[in-house]
Amino acid sequence: MIQIDFQNVLSGAIGPRNGLDKRFLEGLLKKCQPLVKKVLDSKTKPGYAFLGLPDDTKAIQEMVKSAKREQKRKWQNIVVLGIGGSALGGIALQEALLGANSNLNRSPRLFFVDNVDPDFVNSVFSLIDFRKTLFIVVSKSGGTTEPMALYSIVKKMLIRVEPKHYADHLIFVTDLHSGLLQKIGAKENIRVFGIPSKVGGRFSVLTAAALLPAALVGINIQKLVGGANKMMESIRKGKGIQNPALLLACLQHWMDTEKKKPMVVMMPYGNRLFRIADWYRQLLAESIGKNPKTGPTPINALGTTDQHSQLQLYNEGPDNKWFIFMEALKPGIDQKLGNNLPKEIGFLNGRSLDEILKASLQGTIGSLTKNGRPNITLKLDRISEESVGGLLMLLEFQVALLGLLYKVNAFDQPGVEQSKIITKKILSRKLSF
Amino acid sequence: MIQIDFQNVLSGAIGPRNGLDKRFLEGLLKKCQPLVKKVLDSKTKPGYAFLGLPDDTKAIQEMVKSAKREQKRKWQNIVVLGIGGSALGGIALQEALLGANSNLNRSPRLFFVDNVDPDFVNSVFSLIDFRKTLFIVVSKSGGTTEPMALYSIVKKMLIRVEPKHYADHLIFVTDLHSGLLQKIGAKENIRVFGIPSKVGGRFSVLTAAALLPAALVGINIQKLVGGANKMMESIRKGKGIQNPALLLACLQHWMDTEKKKPMVVMMPYGNRLFRIADWYRQLLAESIGKNPKTGPTPINALGTTDQHSQLQLYNEGPDNKWFIFMEALKPGIDQKLGNNLPKEIGFLNGRSLDEILKASLQGTIGSLTKNGRPNITLKLDRISEESVGGLLMLLEFQVALLGLLYKVNAFDQPGVEQSKIITKKILSRKLSF
Repeated sequence: MIQIDFQNVLSGAIGPRNGLDKRFLEGLLKKCQPLVKKVLDSKTKPGYAFLGLPDDTKAIQEMVKSAKREQKRKWQNIVVLGIGGSALGGIALQEALLGANSNLNRSPRLFFVDNVDPDFVNSVFSLIDFRKTLFIVVSKSGGTTEPMALYSIVKKMLIRVEPKHYADHLIFVTDLHSGLLQKIGAKENIRVFGIPSKVGGRFSVLTAAALLPAALVGINIQKLVGGANKMMESIRKGKGIQNPALLLACLQHWMDTEKKKPMVVMMPYGNRLFRIADWYRQLLAESIGKNPKTGPTPINALGTTDQHSQLQLYNEGPDNKWFIFMEALKPGIDQKLGNNLPKEIGFLNGRSLDEILKASLQGTIGSLTKNGRPNITLKLDRISEESVGGLLMLLEFQVALLGLLYKVNAFDQPGVEQSKIITKKILSRKLSF
Repeated sequence: MIQIDFQNVLSGAIGPRNGLDKRFLEGLLKKCQPLVKKVLDSKTKPGYAFLGLPDDTKAIQEMVKSAKREQKRKWQNIVVLGIGGSALGGIALQEALLGANSNLNRSPRLFFVDNVDPDFVNSVFSLIDFRKTLFIVVSKSGGTTEPMALYSIVKKMLIRVEPKHYADHLIFVTDLHSGLLQKIGAKENIRVFGIPSKVGGRFSVLTAAALLPAALVGINIQKLVGGANKMMESIRKGKGIQNPALLLACLQHWMDTEKKKPMVVMMPYGNRLFRIADWYRQLLAESIGKNPKTGPTPINALGTTDQHSQLQLYNEGPDNKWFIFMEALKPGIDQKLGNNLPKEIGFLNGRSLDEILKASLQGTIGSLTKNGRPNITLKLDRISEESVGGLLMLLEFQVALLGLLYKVNAFDQPGVEQSKIITKKILSRKLSF
């Protein structure tokens, strides 16, 4: 399903300054192998509960059933009101499995309103008929400022057009057992889907937070979860370099702490995978960014597009990054060029776009490797529900391992509290600026 | 038009570790002041010619005239085939001045096909009626692989539906005096708009590369250029902290080289400004990323969205970043919440989205400042053609100054050649992998 090509982190390919000796890498993985079991054994602890998600077949079946019911109501729009972990997973699934521009040719359209910028909010709300729209409010804690502010506006507008049935246009996705959305849902008779209490927001992609919107637009969430399950098996059984999560985690930690690469660039070649990189950006930054002395800064880039934007810096700028490329070996679709280009670029005649995309990736990898810049490639067989489910689980498990390697709690986010307090004080008029 | 709030780089606000004494900053700016003149005096040299763009009224008038002509032909779609500097400027203008989701409610729709991923290309090409589409091929050099590959496919498909008039569906934007597109244009009777030879691709936002597509969808490019002109005046005249480009350049250089902040995060609060940050990401990275010892890595983030993704890392992770916030003081539109939220979040009742957005920015700034993390804010009066034109010129001038401060050629990109050579060899079947 997913292979990791790690040749270009070895000293044979990039030299000893940034490279690892293969024997040494094998030894490192052996030393860290017990961490895999440690993560697996923590399954019932707060945060780690995402490990159990692929098995929660009852919840999945309920979502599939609900999606079928809603499909009969012929919604024109599904609008998710959520931010951070309550939007990034769903956006990643939409882009990966429906492709770009899907709101221009599919119904129902799926929008994520993941900001309170009034102009951005208006760009969606002015576009939709509220009577033909289903709103899903997603907040793990149940009281996040942004989705609650948006919910307030949506409720006001829904009551205007559907005074008696406004609750039928709303679904809440929130902590299974507590929080404000649970309370409002019970009081106003609004359907509530649960996120297990011990699953954190940024690890909630395999819960209703992302799976319900996905199911509503026709994504096969059972296959997705099946892919995650399969990946879990590989991680459970894999030893050393055969264990993709362990390999990814050890490389990340080593590149950052020993090879002094504070930045990790995730650069898929292909637009469908770009928002998965964006989802990972939150997962890694918010889980591991807790120590002023160490911790990676994730950076997203897109191939080939960013060859014309960032590759200059990556090749000749400061040697402070390592690179994770992603590609799908088999394209979903391809297109051939004509034989109509002049001789100066005649080498393009008759080739296909996928051939150019792949050759460009090799060009980028080749130049970085020649410059001694460490890089690996995650190779998906093709982009499908299965491979995407597998990829998400792989990266989540990597981050859980990184928590142990970096010795930080991967499941809290104390560093955002101060900002919230100031914002609340200003809005309560207890502080002016 | 644009103010820079730099209080939070001063040691009074963030302490002496990361902060500058105000007197010291003034001295630094005084020392660097001659660089402004040095840039201005280089106006006729290769690369620096972007400085003259706002005055080139003849070219602007021609674009406006052409746009009016094309508007009569009632195109359903304008599709730009370009990558890097040939797409990022246009995308930035579209997002900033038309807002999000503009292709869902405006005509003509404007697409930028800035990748060769066949699936992404298909997501646009399968959507459009080629008979009702105008294609603009943009390549400064005139032979960039990606747009030429896309041009080959588009030409093939246009000839199928419009065998006699396919050239009417094409406009080329390329170097005024040389290159493959000039040659093809002349041979096949395709209209060509020029980019002045001494203006580099990533500095071409105020040429037809971005202005022609913008004019075609109704953006007032004369006002845009007017804003750039006004900014140029401020830069020409401004001394010390009154000179926004000098202030920005000196802070960037000082934060990187003296305060050891290799990353600069540009974080607009508001979706319309996000793609300007993306445009700047190329401008800064490709212009200054040329020295393995020093040079900034630009990072984009969006407020409030990324408070729920990156703020944890920014506040408590490694102290290796400085921050440029952007905001529009007056919102283009605003929306009020209802009084329908329960007491737990009652402080939101009756507030407006823009109030929440602004209070959140203050929360983020407040927390970073308390943690001693240097940050400045670019305050636009509002988002308009004028202020956006001014912002683009400000950032271009900053980067020209940075070339002098970092002692690198800001206008070449030697670090992408190796990758191109490998790609070409593979596609010419001279290298297999």
